[in-house]
Amino acid sequence: MSSHDASSQQSFSRWWAELDPIGRSPSGGYRRFAWTRQDATLREWFRGAAGGLGLDVVTDRTGNVWAWWGDPDADGPGVVIGSHLDSVPEGGAFDGPLGVVSSLAAVEALQQSGFTPRHPIAVACFGDEEGARFGIACAGSRLLTGALDADRARALRDGDGTTMAEAMAAAGHDPQHVGRDDETLRRVGMFVELHVEQGRGLVDVDSAVGVGSAIWPHGRWRFDLAGRADHAGTTRLADRTDPMLDLAALIQAARAAAERYDAVATVGKVSVNPNGVNAIPSSVSAWLDARGPDESDVRSLVADLSDAYGRPDEESWTPRTPFHPTLSANVVHALEELGEPVPVLETGAGHDAGVLSQTGIPTSMLYVRNPTGVSHSPLEHAEVDDCLAGVDALTHVVRRLAQ
Amino acid sequence: MSSHDASSQQSFSRWWAELDPIGRSPSGGYRRFAWTRQDATLREWFRGAAGGLGLDVVTDRTGNVWAWWGDPDADGPGVVIGSHLDSVPEGGAFDGPLGVVSSLAAVEALQQSGFTPRHPIAVACFGDEEGARFGIACAGSRLLTGALDADRARALRDGDGTTMAEAMAAAGHDPQHVGRDDETLRRVGMFVELHVEQGRGLVDVDSAVGVGSAIWPHGRWRFDLAGRADHAGTTRLADRTDPMLDLAALIQAARAAAERYDAVATVGKVSVNPNGVNAIPSSVSAWLDARGPDESDVRSLVADLSDAYGRPDEESWTPRTPFHPTLSANVVHALEELGEPVPVLETGAGHDAGVLSQTGIPTSMLYVRNPTGVSHSPLEHAEVDDCLAGVDALTHVVRRLAQ
Repeated sequence: MSSHDASSQQSFSRWWAELDPIGRSPSGGYRRFAWTRQDATLREWFRGAAGGLGLDVVTDRTGNVWAWWGDPDADGPGVVIGSHLDSVPEGGAFDGPLGVVSSLAAVEALQQSGFTPRHPIAVACFGDEEGARFGIACAGSRLLTGALDADRARALRDGDGTTMAEAMAAAGHDPQHVGRDDETLRRVGMFVELHVEQGRGLVDVDSAVGVGSAIWPHGRWRFDLAGRADHAGTTRLADRTDPMLDLAALIQAARAAAERYDAVATVGKVSVNPNGVNAIPSSVSAWLDARGPDESDVRSLVADLSDAYGRPDEESWTPRTPFHPTLSANVVHALEELGEPVPVLETGAGHDAGVLSQTGIPTSMLYVRNPTGVSHSPLEHAEVDDCLAGVDALTHVVRRLAQ
Repeated sequence: MSSHDASSQQSFSRWWAELDPIGRSPSGGYRRFAWTRQDATLREWFRGAAGGLGLDVVTDRTGNVWAWWGDPDADGPGVVIGSHLDSVPEGGAFDGPLGVVSSLAAVEALQQSGFTPRHPIAVACFGDEEGARFGIACAGSRLLTGALDADRARALRDGDGTTMAEAMAAAGHDPQHVGRDDETLRRVGMFVELHVEQGRGLVDVDSAVGVGSAIWPHGRWRFDLAGRADHAGTTRLADRTDPMLDLAALIQAARAAAERYDAVATVGKVSVNPNGVNAIPSSVSAWLDARGPDESDVRSLVADLSDAYGRPDEESWTPRTPFHPTLSANVVHALEELGEPVPVLETGAGHDAGVLSQTGIPTSMLYVRNPTGVSHSPLEHAEVDDCLAGVDALTHVVRRLAQ
């Protein structure tokens, strides 16, 4: 896959350069949060790029954007590819946008090769995948499938107290009609999401592109650690009930439990009350993210921490999500035709593809090698050659699936 | 001290009831921060109460308010009593207001007894003592004495990014003229601050009122713990550089060092970047508050942590501050005339009295028993009888000092 189509290479580079400055913070990381000005710019960019390919661009009731080649209402459910454009705070450039740009490039390559699809093809751009603003990941696809209740979503608040409904309305999107949307779902015959790899699986086997087999079971839990507010200068050590000491023990216990159960566990977010330098906190909340290949191991990890630090609030739980076996086999088969070995990988990261899979839509994923293995960080990376190999792979997969 | 003057009791209760609702949050704690609407209401209240006693109310260039009985410019430096009205986040009712209300009650009691002061007397109400909004404790008195640089103070930002200069201007106070103010300082012959005790010293010896001897050396240090941002679901434990683990170790090491050096140490404030549930943080900042009776012990405590967790930024350091020996002896002597034993206490809490002491003004402190020993919390308390004993003590002290 060393020589890529020159025209698709050009488009890829142009689109990538257009996206580069949008929502970039001075530190070099991206801050592209749902229903912000940056988000509006990204959506506008997508409509423009897809329109330039002659695709019909439709925004669904929840705010996900679909760019169709062909008419799924007339010609039956289509082959959908795509990803998302929003980011985590100080995120990297590739998580999301690589899938969207690669999908547009794949459509362009198919068009230029004179391909006539037997099934409609669409590029989807899902809203609010990272949940950076309102705390719920994959909010766009979860609302679409009904996995996230519309009333609950509308009432979610960001750090400034703005509700999702208010944020949508301010961005010109009517929040009244979000929610399970069978009309849109009926159009999706299958979904293939291309994504930068978020670990070192492909680095280890020296491959540019791989196929996903499943998403690990994963969840989020909030531990509320109670203390007694008091003065940092006048309260004897023996008289203190300091929840910061419990936080310290919880962080270490989560790490130890992850090692014990061959899983991963992270305390990435804490909230301290009142968070004053000279105040022993009255309470500390700590969010645990835990995932692993085995569901009962992840459950045991959380149970061990619950025993020691009190029953946490389970904010989300997603069981093991295998991708569609027949579709994935077809994807692997198509890639094998390109003459390279095709590694098959599990992942600890949730994706819109996982959400669609849970509602019964056949889904599959392609991963593109990330030399740093780092993700959700400006260090996240993919070499241009690997990105173009991803475009070639996706192009070939869509050709096989839509013919 | 079982029977208190009925009129002073009445005034005390009335003033206390007037203050009660100002800045109270639904949780029952107080949020009275500098240069807010609540702060303006408190200042207005003070001007009204002091004006009702016929005192001349003057706001100094920095925003501290002084209510004078007599003319210090004509009759020489006065005997100043008082404290502050602002609070920490979710603070108690007594820290600050008890000193202000007791001072007003003492002045009223002296007036009603027909006392004619030989020296002017003032009740001072210092601004921004807790530093809850801009992070510098005793900002009002430190600006007054020049211990806090005016330019640095004006540029301090609150959590919303508003500078102290902007906050002052929005409250109608010209920030141009804050700073070392010799005209005001010249009027202060001595300062006696009454304060609720913030520990259990008086509970232990079963006394309602005590006298301060010194403020412990104390300081604030910020440790910046570096990590590498990464995805919580896809990054192997072995590949992580997670600063949350360093935070956990630092919290525990601070506690252990405090025990080792017979001091107190608190991590009460942390800031996590980006603070996302599914993100291994790129960095964590942790603020250490450390204090103790012995200066070299506190220094050693911080040095031990520096060796392990990197050199912190020293945000403030205040050496041991003894109160004025002659003035304190006079205060003790006056209280002994009331026929009760007079405990003498050191404290770990900083106060405006300490700041004035460092600039060479003779200062002393009175403490009123706090049955919970808890402070900076809604649990902070003083019984009415003890408060009135405090008023009696302060009244008698001022009578002796101003005659």
